[in-house]
Amino acid sequence: MAIAIMTSGGDCAGMNPAIKQFVDYCYTNEVQPYLIYDGLEGLIDGAIKAATYEDVAGIMHEGGTKIRSSRSKRFFEYEYRKQAFENLQKHGIDKIVILGGDGSFRALNQFHKDFGVNFVGIPATIDNDIYGTEYCLGVDTALNIIRQATDAVRDTSASFRRACVIETMGRDCGYLALVSAITCGAEICIIPELEYDLDSIGKRLKGELANGRKYIVCLVAEGCNKDKCISTPNLVRWLEEDIGIETRATILGHVQRGGNPTVFDRLMASEFVSYSIDKLLSDHKEGSVIVYKKSEFEFVSIEHVNSQKYKIREDLLELAKRLVN
Amino acid sequence: MAIAIMTSGGDCAGMNPAIKQFVDYCYTNEVQPYLIYDGLEGLIDGAIKAATYEDVAGIMHEGGTKIRSSRSKRFFEYEYRKQAFENLQKHGIDKIVILGGDGSFRALNQFHKDFGVNFVGIPATIDNDIYGTEYCLGVDTALNIIRQATDAVRDTSASFRRACVIETMGRDCGYLALVSAITCGAEICIIPELEYDLDSIGKRLKGELANGRKYIVCLVAEGCNKDKCISTPNLVRWLEEDIGIETRATILGHVQRGGNPTVFDRLMASEFVSYSIDKLLSDHKEGSVIVYKKSEFEFVSIEHVNSQKYKIREDLLELAKRLVN
Amino acid sequence: MAIAIMTSGGDCAGMNPAIKQFVDYCYTNEVQPYLIYDGLEGLIDGAIKAATYEDVAGIMHEGGTKIRSSRSKRFFEYEYRKQAFENLQKHGIDKIVILGGDGSFRALNQFHKDFGVNFVGIPATIDNDIYGTEYCLGVDTALNIIRQATDAVRDTSASFRRACVIETMGRDCGYLALVSAITCGAEICIIPELEYDLDSIGKRLKGELANGRKYIVCLVAEGCNKDKCISTPNLVRWLEEDIGIETRATILGHVQRGGNPTVFDRLMASEFVSYSIDKLLSDHKEGSVIVYKKSEFEFVSIEHVNSQKYKIREDLLELAKRLVN
Amino acid sequence: MAIAIMTSGGDCAGMNPAIKQFVDYCYTNEVQPYLIYDGLEGLIDGAIKAATYEDVAGIMHEGGTKIRSSRSKRFFEYEYRKQAFENLQKHGIDKIVILGGDGSFRALNQFHKDFGVNFVGIPATIDNDIYGTEYCLGVDTALNIIRQATDAVRDTSASFRRACVIETMGRDCGYLALVSAITCGAEICIIPELEYDLDSIGKRLKGELANGRKYIVCLVAEGCNKDKCISTPNLVRWLEEDIGIETRATILGHVQRGGNPTVFDRLMASEFVSYSIDKLLSDHKEGSVIVYKKSEFEFVSIEHVNSQKYKIREDLLELAKRLVN
Repeated sequence: MAIAIMTSGGDCAGMNPAIKQFVDYCYTNEVQPYLIYDGLEGLIDGAIKAATYEDVAGIMHEGGTKIRSSRSKRFFEYEYRKQAFENLQKHGIDKIVILGGDGSFRALNQFHKDFGVNFVGIPATIDNDIYGTEYCLGVDTALNIIRQATDAVRDTSASFRRACVIETMGRDCGYLALVSAITCGAEICIIPELEYDLDSIGKRLKGELANGRKYIVCLVAEGCNKDKCISTPNLVRWLEEDIGIETRATILGHVQRGGNPTVFDRLMASEFVSYSIDKLLSDHKEGSVIVYKKSEFEFVSIEHVNSQKYKIREDLLELAKRLVN
Repeated sequence: MAIAIMTSGGDCAGMNPAIKQFVDYCYTNEVQPYLIYDGLEGLIDGAIKAATYEDVAGIMHEGGTKIRSSRSKRFFEYEYRKQAFENLQKHGIDKIVILGGDGSFRALNQFHKDFGVNFVGIPATIDNDIYGTEYCLGVDTALNIIRQATDAVRDTSASFRRACVIETMGRDCGYLALVSAITCGAEICIIPELEYDLDSIGKRLKGELANGRKYIVCLVAEGCNKDKCISTPNLVRWLEEDIGIETRATILGHVQRGGNPTVFDRLMASEFVSYSIDKLLSDHKEGSVIVYKKSEFEFVSIEHVNSQKYKIREDLLELAKRLVN
Repeated sequence: MAIAIMTSGGDCAGMNPAIKQFVDYCYTNEVQPYLIYDGLEGLIDGAIKAATYEDVAGIMHEGGTKIRSSRSKRFFEYEYRKQAFENLQKHGIDKIVILGGDGSFRALNQFHKDFGVNFVGIPATIDNDIYGTEYCLGVDTALNIIRQATDAVRDTSASFRRACVIETMGRDCGYLALVSAITCGAEICIIPELEYDLDSIGKRLKGELANGRKYIVCLVAEGCNKDKCISTPNLVRWLEEDIGIETRATILGHVQRGGNPTVFDRLMASEFVSYSIDKLLSDHKEGSVIVYKKSEFEFVSIEHVNSQKYKIREDLLELAKRLVN
Repeated sequence: MAIAIMTSGGDCAGMNPAIKQFVDYCYTNEVQPYLIYDGLEGLIDGAIKAATYEDVAGIMHEGGTKIRSSRSKRFFEYEYRKQAFENLQKHGIDKIVILGGDGSFRALNQFHKDFGVNFVGIPATIDNDIYGTEYCLGVDTALNIIRQATDAVRDTSASFRRACVIETMGRDCGYLALVSAITCGAEICIIPELEYDLDSIGKRLKGELANGRKYIVCLVAEGCNKDKCISTPNLVRWLEEDIGIETRATILGHVQRGGNPTVFDRLMASEFVSYSIDKLLSDHKEGSVIVYKKSEFEFVSIEHVNSQKYKIREDLLELAKRLVN
């Protein structure tokens, strides 16, 4: 019996602790662990290796993923999936743990339907936008990187009576910007999930500036650039022209993905992986996703995860209401 | 109507974000916020002040508590509690939010019985040892400080083929040491909650050292020095004499309490405080503790919190079993 | 006798430790310290305050400047300078310590010529581009922030076989990008001070990629966008099209200015300020700049500082030569 | 022609960047680089390996030393040194770069006298106590770790009106404690190099506490426990009994050695190594030590380095005088 692990789609902090725990936990359970390198592309190309302790020694505190990731168009074609399946067969691998987002889970679900390979998907994306789970691996580390950047930018804004606009990742989901706004003491938070009222915000800020406020911090989700939301450049213009305060924008970019995983991400990685292996070693015969819900871990179907768009918790949105009015 | 906030007992990261959110949320709800300085001692001595935005500007990223804390013997005496009550009356304060541990909650409960002052207790202690809640404010920051120290000590141990023993805080509870052991890739974890078998650990380590292991990381809870557990100096001696590896001990001490609060602690602070104020502004007529349980916030009685000793989640203990054998 | 301190132009880490040391050292020398808020603008508007220990308590670890900064057009006019001088006279201030860049020094030099106010300028700018000094306050903190960002971005690049282009500050000077490239193990470094040869770089990288290189890290100075250098977007295009590797750009922006000052910046702040005060308390009758050169502190004239453009040390440029070919 | 690198004695941050630069710079100069593992012990036992790019990929940001270190008694005996020399001969190695302290340099000097092996010693010790150089590798990273710990401990002290005593490394030299005291805003600094007057300190502190001071931070060098200085436990007792303030001690220990090397340590590592290789590739026929002095790098004899005890710069001691009275 042999299990393999792979990482797919966007990388995030927590993947390396997950890979380490995967190898340790397999050996504790006397199962042979395998590493699939380069995601679905590597699965097609046979970049598969029996894992040793050496492979994962000292990777706990590294960001990204040591077995690398990819996005694969080839995997949409049956021919390549068949090739991938034959690669697994050569090593006797019949179970997979995959870390990634819903796209990756759908891809493996098709693979399961084709060839019956059992797998568990572990939600891993800093966007935190997978339906059915309260937590996706990597989010806590990303949030703490944003916090450090925001604390730093605030220092410099406060030195100049300036506004700063900080744009976080999150193409379809404002989670990162929302939590950062609440926890970094922002004055404005622009995310797709919350209606904002510029007039009302403007009135509030002008009042506070008149009362001695020295700086303004705004958090904006990347996704706001495409939707009905106000984009970062437009928000900067509005602050300068309508509010009359010098403004600087910072687009955090890929800095948010990397970095030494936080304790929370390391712990979630350990738990996600251990219970996934337990599940695969039991009578599990399908593809499922492990989710974290109400402090517990459960397994749900790929269909369930794909059935709806992730929604941010109402109470969190509530906490930010004073930042959109 | 006026509400006051105070911090009591051991300080922790997250108290300052809680104080800031307290002031902001009171103003949003048009209630006058008050700050009680120096914990119960300050309550007795009348160190009470109406809070302004200025008082809490820019404290979000500071460790410790800006309104300071204390341990009070005087508060056990009725006479001093009466004096404290009269101080509150002068300001028209009839509701209190208190951050601290179960000792502080018991003290305020007596105060409530004496004079009917309503209060909500927010669990705040890095030991994470309060019954009835899954989380106490400050734990996540403390864990991340321990992580950085452990990552650093491992570097130097690995440079020398050495063992290191890292002693964390936790007088009655091994939570910090346990989670640190799991998330920092330790080889040994000694906490009061887990029986360990030195013979078995010794056999395992000797095998691994023979197979090329270069260093050993051990996490020990402070509480282990008094109980049946092996103390840090004895563990060092055992490693040097029985396992035959040079060993260094590091006692982390008060470093664990301070530091820039993590996002998780800031967010929990915001939620704990907001819901506590909501509760006090509703028809709440007693003393209760807000607890975090299965991703939700609830209010329980002081008696409930004091009815049992906190127990670490079974699944976490399970993850560490391979570190005690 | 009274001395005032002010910060002018772009802010940087190290200004707050300088302000704290200024107040402490004045009191040790029994001179009354004053704070001028908001830079030259505040000097014109009379934002001047006798400093207390309270004003500077606990600011050592804060980024930016607590007394704020500004850029001032009004100060070019004699009338406003006269008003500024009268403000100083009201408080009996006849000596100034100013932290800033050469523009700020020139402004105060005119002020000195007009009214005889003695001052010492302390070079403070993360660009490290002031002639005559080997070090400008704030550079070490900025470099360490860039290091953390680069370490993080490399993690994610390595997870994907990608190139990353990281643009640092430095409008006229490539110092930040150069040192970051050397110390973060970059493969390419584009700065105005170094001629590069894209053909040669391309050949080298293609060879290394063929031999298994997994990622490419490029550091680019902001100033490269205007000069003969290749700009960030053009470098991205070249990497994608000519080298054939997926590439992401990160523009670090204002994050580089803020953050907890490093030990080096705190120490330089203490020394710069103490010796400047010593100088002003001696028979100093002019405007000068304190510079750091060959491990020693000296005083030079404003004219000297303005006489040439800062040049990066030859040996540092030498260390980076393999990154431009 | 072949050059080897080794690390010896206590490890420090900056050794890994030095090893990486060593390999890169050798290849740029078309010399074969070798790695000697486990210090002098490994030299005796033949733990020598031709270095590849792979060996040093991604080690720039790791603390400690990837090729490990040791202390060796055997190397005092001619027989073992002869064996070491024969190991080098097998690989054709006739030049060595060694990172360590003066003990390691003396050991290699004897080796040079015995067998004519040329070498350059790079001062590397967080104690910063090697005569003849203004800087030893690892010091800047150690100082920044102490800074973060001190900033954290101050938070918790300020929350409780407490004193804290922080003991840094430094058996014979108070450099770490001194610079930390200056840069972290301490009130007391106890090091072997500075006479202190407890009566005078006591009077000062009592005055400040009466004027509202909320906490006291003391930095003490490890070495103070053996000499005429007051030891950490005695200082704690004095603060509690004579000054009347609750006090906690923190002994930082091995945490100070590890951690991601700062930019300054990475840059010094690059320069130390590059110029050492240049020297060895020129007509250098002896053992020397590369030192950093007045912003320049020079080569001095082992005898010079051993001729005197390192002395801390007078101006730094001067800055701390108000902390010992």
